Amino acid sequence: MSEQDLEICPASAGLADCPGFRVAGVSCDVRNKGDNRLDLALFVTEPEAAAAAVFTKHALPAAPIQLGRDSLAEHPFLRAVVINSGNANACTGADGLEDALRMRGVVTKELGLPHESLVLVSSTGRIGERLPMERLTKGIAEGASRLTSDSTEGERAADAILTSDTRRKVATIRFRCQGKTLTLAGMAKGAGMIEPNMATMLAFLATDAAVDPAFLKTALREAVQDSFNAITVDGDQSTNDTVLLMANGHSGVFLETDRDRSLFTQALRMLCQDLAEKIVGDGEKITKVVEILVEQAHSKAEAEKAARAIGNSLLVKSSWYGNDPNWGRVADAVGYSAAAVAEDTLEIYYDTVPAFLQGKPCWENREQWRKIVAEPRFTLRVVLGQGDSSYRLLASDLTEGYVNFNKSE
Amino acid sequence: MSEQDLEICPASAGLADCPGFRVAGVSCDVRNKGDNRLDLALFVTEPEAAAAAVFTKHALPAAPIQLGRDSLAEHPFLRAVVINSGNANACTGADGLEDALRMRGVVTKELGLPHESLVLVSSTGRIGERLPMERLTKGIAEGASRLTSDSTEGERAADAILTSDTRRKVATIRFRCQGKTLTLAGMAKGAGMIEPNMATMLAFLATDAAVDPAFLKTALREAVQDSFNAITVDGDQSTNDTVLLMANGHSGVFLETDRDRSLFTQALRMLCQDLAEKIVGDGEKITKVVEILVEQAHSKAEAEKAARAIGNSLLVKSSWYGNDPNWGRVADAVGYSAAAVAEDTLEIYYDTVPAFLQGKPCWENREQWRKIVAEPRFTLRVVLGQGDSSYRLLASDLTEGYVNFNKSE
Repeated sequence: MSEQDLEICPASAGLADCPGFRVAGVSCDVRNKGDNRLDLALFVTEPEAAAAAVFTKHALPAAPIQLGRDSLAEHPFLRAVVINSGNANACTGADGLEDALRMRGVVTKELGLPHESLVLVSSTGRIGERLPMERLTKGIAEGASRLTSDSTEGERAADAILTSDTRRKVATIRFRCQGKTLTLAGMAKGAGMIEPNMATMLAFLATDAAVDPAFLKTALREAVQDSFNAITVDGDQSTNDTVLLMANGHSGVFLETDRDRSLFTQALRMLCQDLAEKIVGDGEKITKVVEILVEQAHSKAEAEKAARAIGNSLLVKSSWYGNDPNWGRVADAVGYSAAAVAEDTLEIYYDTVPAFLQGKPCWENREQWRKIVAEPRFTLRVVLGQGDSSYRLLASDLTEGYVNFNKSE
Repeated sequence: MSEQDLEICPASAGLADCPGFRVAGVSCDVRNKGDNRLDLALFVTEPEAAAAAVFTKHALPAAPIQLGRDSLAEHPFLRAVVINSGNANACTGADGLEDALRMRGVVTKELGLPHESLVLVSSTGRIGERLPMERLTKGIAEGASRLTSDSTEGERAADAILTSDTRRKVATIRFRCQGKTLTLAGMAKGAGMIEPNMATMLAFLATDAAVDPAFLKTALREAVQDSFNAITVDGDQSTNDTVLLMANGHSGVFLETDRDRSLFTQALRMLCQDLAEKIVGDGEKITKVVEILVEQAHSKAEAEKAARAIGNSLLVKSSWYGNDPNWGRVADAVGYSAAAVAEDTLEIYYDTVPAFLQGKPCWENREQWRKIVAEPRFTLRVVLGQGDSSYRLLASDLTEGYVNFNKSE
């Protein structure tokens, strides 16, 4: 396949960019603050979309997760999705499950859909509080009346799912298939609690390709591994994480051949990686993003352990914040990560500049490291010299601002 | 055994309190700052002491760790220990090992000992830099000339091993055995990188009881599990961790009976827990210590996982700093800890006040939680309702001061 087959669009309106999707973003004061903050997104697809999702592995999944997981397992097709921010509907017990069911019922009724299982509910925000059902019900009605494929409404929908994010996260990719231009588009939210198995993050992805549910599921799982599961802000995971992918076949193009499927897989990974990078780049009060590459590990699992030990070390993250290379703390994190490593095979590089080689620090490069670590984005390459497996993790620094921001809600 | 059998002394001079030990603390400018900071401790025991140690499990152990581990495995007896702060002699390769050997040689010669293996070397401080051997050699000579059992010198020795600690950490316990009063005394350092498997922490413990090396080793391992391995400040471990216990038999009392050994084990655990609590209480820029009790877990391993997930969650630690109870973040951490848990059996208490019971938040107690979390020390009890195993972890909060302090060295 040629480069022309795939293109990331310079501008995106999120799901509104995908043919067959209509979206809405409204304000219904979930947080009960009397402000006009957008906090409810609704979208509908025609025709019905095959759907696949990756949900949090959390042992206390929020009510909408329990509902969506069961529903999609039984019937992997959707017509509509409703998402609220400001309240996670987590740790809310049987009451919370009832609220999620009611929310789904209201959407089904407002849109005149034949089955409740055609609607997915998603929530994000504070844990342990009941949803404000009356205000949500009004919001859903208003959303239903606003549904459109206009860019502005796509942006409103993408804004409505944000919590402590400071920026909208949307991406659109076009790819050529069977002589037609198809679309993959998505919106996401991130900010805090970002680590493996996705943490408090939501992503809603859509394509107008026709894809069977089984392949959709496989492709999504693979793409999530290399993107949303390979970022870390604070190591915390959450009760509500969801990545949903819908394929409505609006284009009439069915992905059957290996070439088509491979192209789609590639486009999906690009979309997920683009959104994942936007999430880590907007981590709570961060000042930089570090790409951690662990190479020559004994196994991929060990490469990942080493990368996460580095990316989650408070000492390493604090030193990045202070523009201090401090490769010693990096070596320390690798050493307790449970990955096999030896002092005389370990190599540490800032971008391409060596900091530690063959058991010795390269102090002569110190000024170069300092400049690199002062950049808003750099690569930390750690070579273990034990095998041929590698892992890539995007991590943020840790700032005084993060602690201050999270010291109370 | 009665309560009179065991007593924590209100004042301690560390190892100087243990009969048969002479100590010294000197300044030899390891950090090359031209200040008079105490940075070298030396102590000697007569008679020779049986010795047991627990060393870091780090994959890149510092040079003195490699040396001490091999030496004690072969010959578990010591006459002297030398410790420097300011430089960890870690990630220094063959050169570092040679420096550690030289340091041991200098002590052997200065004290006129028959074998180098009777000396243990220990270092803590920056990673990746060579030791200043000339200044250390002078310092050791000065230390040898100062050796005494005076309290003031004991305090100087305890001060000399500190790095970013703000307070001296010493403890002394007296216990009655076979009609005599025996002593267990120790000094420790902590501050940053404090987590399982001891992190950058050193502790040197001494008793005048006569104990065979095999029992000494078992007793020490058990005591370390419940004390130094059950604290967390930032989740980072280090290249240099060491807990050393020496028994010189100066009292002439040999611990043979089950009663004697049980009493000793109990005294040793008390000593280790006292020093461990002092370490976490002096974590870098912390404002409070939280005792996390996880109960009714499926297994002890799961109880520990849940406790560590809570105690290492940046969001949980930040909220403690802000005096914000935020039990939702606690439930979140438990849920991703890989410990079995269910919403309707989970219980969360601040001290004895319930915050979450039978699947529901106890909002009516909110003001009480707030008061408790504002205290400098409180207990967070988390009941999983899955089995009968439990785990206790002492954790600190995370502050803006910690990040600021560690952003550069």
